[in-house]
Amino acid sequence: MLKNDPLEQWDRDSFLHSSTHLAEFARGNVPQRLISGGEGCHITDRNGTRLLDGFAGLYCVNAGYGRQEIAEAIAKQARELSYYHSYVGHGTEASVTLAKMVMDRAPDHMSKVFFGLGGSDANETNIKLIWYMNNILGRPEKKKIISRWRGYHGSGLMTGSLTGLHLFHKKFDLPLAQILHTEAPYYYGRDKGEMTEQEFSAWCAAELEAMIEREGPETIAAFWAEPVLGTGGIVPPPEGYWEAIQPVLERHDILLVADEVVTGFGRLGTMMGSDHYGLRPDLITIAKGLTSAYAPLSGSIVSDKVWKVLEAGTDELGPIGHGWTYSAHPIGAAAGVANLQLIDDLNLVQNAGEVGNYFSGRMREALGDHPNVGDVRGEGMLCAVELTADKATRAALDPNDKTTVKTVAHLLENGVIGRAMPQAEIIGFAPPFCLTRDEADEIVEKTAKAVHAVLGAG
Amino acid sequence: MLKNDPLEQWDRDSFLHSSTHLAEFARGNVPQRLISGGEGCHITDRNGTRLLDGFAGLYCVNAGYGRQEIAEAIAKQARELSYYHSYVGHGTEASVTLAKMVMDRAPDHMSKVFFGLGGSDANETNIKLIWYMNNILGRPEKKKIISRWRGYHGSGLMTGSLTGLHLFHKKFDLPLAQILHTEAPYYYGRDKGEMTEQEFSAWCAAELEAMIEREGPETIAAFWAEPVLGTGGIVPPPEGYWEAIQPVLERHDILLVADEVVTGFGRLGTMMGSDHYGLRPDLITIAKGLTSAYAPLSGSIVSDKVWKVLEAGTDELGPIGHGWTYSAHPIGAAAGVANLQLIDDLNLVQNAGEVGNYFSGRMREALGDHPNVGDVRGEGMLCAVELTADKATRAALDPNDKTTVKTVAHLLENGVIGRAMPQAEIIGFAPPFCLTRDEADEIVEKTAKAVHAVLGAG
Repeated sequence: MLKNDPLEQWDRDSFLHSSTHLAEFARGNVPQRLISGGEGCHITDRNGTRLLDGFAGLYCVNAGYGRQEIAEAIAKQARELSYYHSYVGHGTEASVTLAKMVMDRAPDHMSKVFFGLGGSDANETNIKLIWYMNNILGRPEKKKIISRWRGYHGSGLMTGSLTGLHLFHKKFDLPLAQILHTEAPYYYGRDKGEMTEQEFSAWCAAELEAMIEREGPETIAAFWAEPVLGTGGIVPPPEGYWEAIQPVLERHDILLVADEVVTGFGRLGTMMGSDHYGLRPDLITIAKGLTSAYAPLSGSIVSDKVWKVLEAGTDELGPIGHGWTYSAHPIGAAAGVANLQLIDDLNLVQNAGEVGNYFSGRMREALGDHPNVGDVRGEGMLCAVELTADKATRAALDPNDKTTVKTVAHLLENGVIGRAMPQAEIIGFAPPFCLTRDEADEIVEKTAKAVHAVLGAG
Repeated sequence: MLKNDPLEQWDRDSFLHSSTHLAEFARGNVPQRLISGGEGCHITDRNGTRLLDGFAGLYCVNAGYGRQEIAEAIAKQARELSYYHSYVGHGTEASVTLAKMVMDRAPDHMSKVFFGLGGSDANETNIKLIWYMNNILGRPEKKKIISRWRGYHGSGLMTGSLTGLHLFHKKFDLPLAQILHTEAPYYYGRDKGEMTEQEFSAWCAAELEAMIEREGPETIAAFWAEPVLGTGGIVPPPEGYWEAIQPVLERHDILLVADEVVTGFGRLGTMMGSDHYGLRPDLITIAKGLTSAYAPLSGSIVSDKVWKVLEAGTDELGPIGHGWTYSAHPIGAAAGVANLQLIDDLNLVQNAGEVGNYFSGRMREALGDHPNVGDVRGEGMLCAVELTADKATRAALDPNDKTTVKTVAHLLENGVIGRAMPQAEIIGFAPPFCLTRDEADEIVEKTAKAVHAVLGAG
């Protein structure tokens, strides 16, 4: 490919990128990178630079890049039938097969799956189903939703409201009034002084229950949560958290929605994050790992309990007024079938658990004692390094120093992609499940080198 | 493919379909249809039934089924790189090329495009951009949005609120408070007695202005409209409509959002519906025709005026907090590039205009005089037949008779797909742009036969 073509200018002139400084990008003052290929855990850009992708795109290319089995399934579906809708009982062999494969992998008490495009719209579907459900059940006032500060559930108006990060609210008039936020299960970031993890979990549950009682349990429909906080900092729950939270929800007849967009289909080393932590969700949101991002597809999995109400609702009112043109898109469905098959065939869920555990362990060894490293945490193929000004007090670094951004930039210069997580000083990793121990070592060594370069050897 | 495989049962047990009677589907009491292939204007189901698709999926397979040029572009992209994100200045050759191709086809005063997945999320993006914009401009109270009864803008919580059809509101607590609805530009369905089209258009504009003044123009951010009402009944605007509406918006500094999900990229016989009717939108929503549905991709096109504010906003606040994991997905982008190229190469926009015009004309000849046909209307490759109990008074048929549903079922029995539009007795058609005159004749003849079978020969 010639390099003197006009692509760079077209990009600057025409393309609004996500989460980008739009003005500086248009002026050419911030970098542009066109990705042209990938294989396993590596991507290659158009200039030939090869990078070890420690974040699997946006924690989504779980099977790894360049999987020809998935590519050929997409190609075959494209040649035969690229599109038909899934309204009024229509489908394709791929979409029906995938529905069955999803239900085989979901917890036993789940009943059926609705397919959407991405995680945000799947969360919208779940809100719609919950409101519909409580209307059918004759409790129209039970509609408010509680999510958590630092939760990430999408970037739309209602889903961005579910999200508990200021970056996604600022200047967009979010959160909307229907959404309330309770405490983040962020033990490291607590400002409550001396508490054990168990005490902190009990305190989170007590705060949740106090909010429910303040608002009136008859007004609260659902509690929305990722099994492990993702974009909010890659934070596994503190000890005893889910054991403390679930009884509160049961006591007040509040549905639990598990947003498994990041954790679903293996990232924690178990098929679903709900299994991993003993959650019993009423609805599950799935996306990224469903297709390893080879094509857009998401889903809303409903439990037997929710299904019974949907059944009664359509018997009372007829067809449900919900659907997307691209629900269960054939290309996404074909990608999903091939992806879930490949994940099984290559035993990638087990690899995510084993190599993920090795990766976090090595990271802890390499950086756990550094005076500016407050926490190294992980679960399955998720790992985070949290930086601090003072290890003992957990004091924050001066945000003006942009320490994490500089560290991640140094890492990138050395050929590894990590992510500066928003609203804290956290370097996040979420590699493809096919990560090898050698690749894990490389990420750890280069991360340590970057931390040392920016903060000193400690 | 063997027919005794378990697909039917999997479908009934596992799959929640859009706009379906969920209970009856699960019980096996309403039909299931698995689509397996397509070519040109025809699809084939798994039992070998071949159907002439008079609705192009959901008015989206504009280039026609089975286009190997698009399938091969998808296959090539899948083999090389199925996914990378488009955050912080990342892209692919396909997504940048498509951004350029979209801007070449948009009205001259448009500046840049943000890519999403489907029409609903692109409308969400546009609401977010508008609210952000008015915050940057220091008018935080200017946030309400006016759309129209019978408009269709999506199925999410906020986009389903923009939609002005009861089916999409019922039991979902929609519309949300931020959205107001004004009169539909539905001249045939008027209940205002004797008015010319021009008078009706002036009345719609006066009603809009009265709503704006009642609410306070300083509280109204935008007016949302399809150039031609789609799901609300396939209704081209009455004479003088846009000429009457646009000055009202200008007078009160209210943005115009043209939802071109159905009309964009050629359905009216012109590249964009905005060009067709002389609209000067501030934002344009695109989806379906962008890729002919071969892969999910949508877009929000912003004008120079909106861009100037986004530029100022990111200079003030830094990166914008908006984006989807699957924004500008490489597979969708590759499909879009190949599709727009094919639409040009085969001169399909011109064909949509010419054969569309022939199709509507033939439909009018065949059914215009039938005593139960109140209106035959069309624009480009869109056509609708509206049924009535009484041609003179335009009285409604008894909805319990399900006349349109029966007519469309008869048509399907004869191998042609038409659509019973919601909330009226309207048979809608929106064929692929490659429709031939022979195929147009076939749809017309079979529609006439179906109307005669259900309502008598007249």
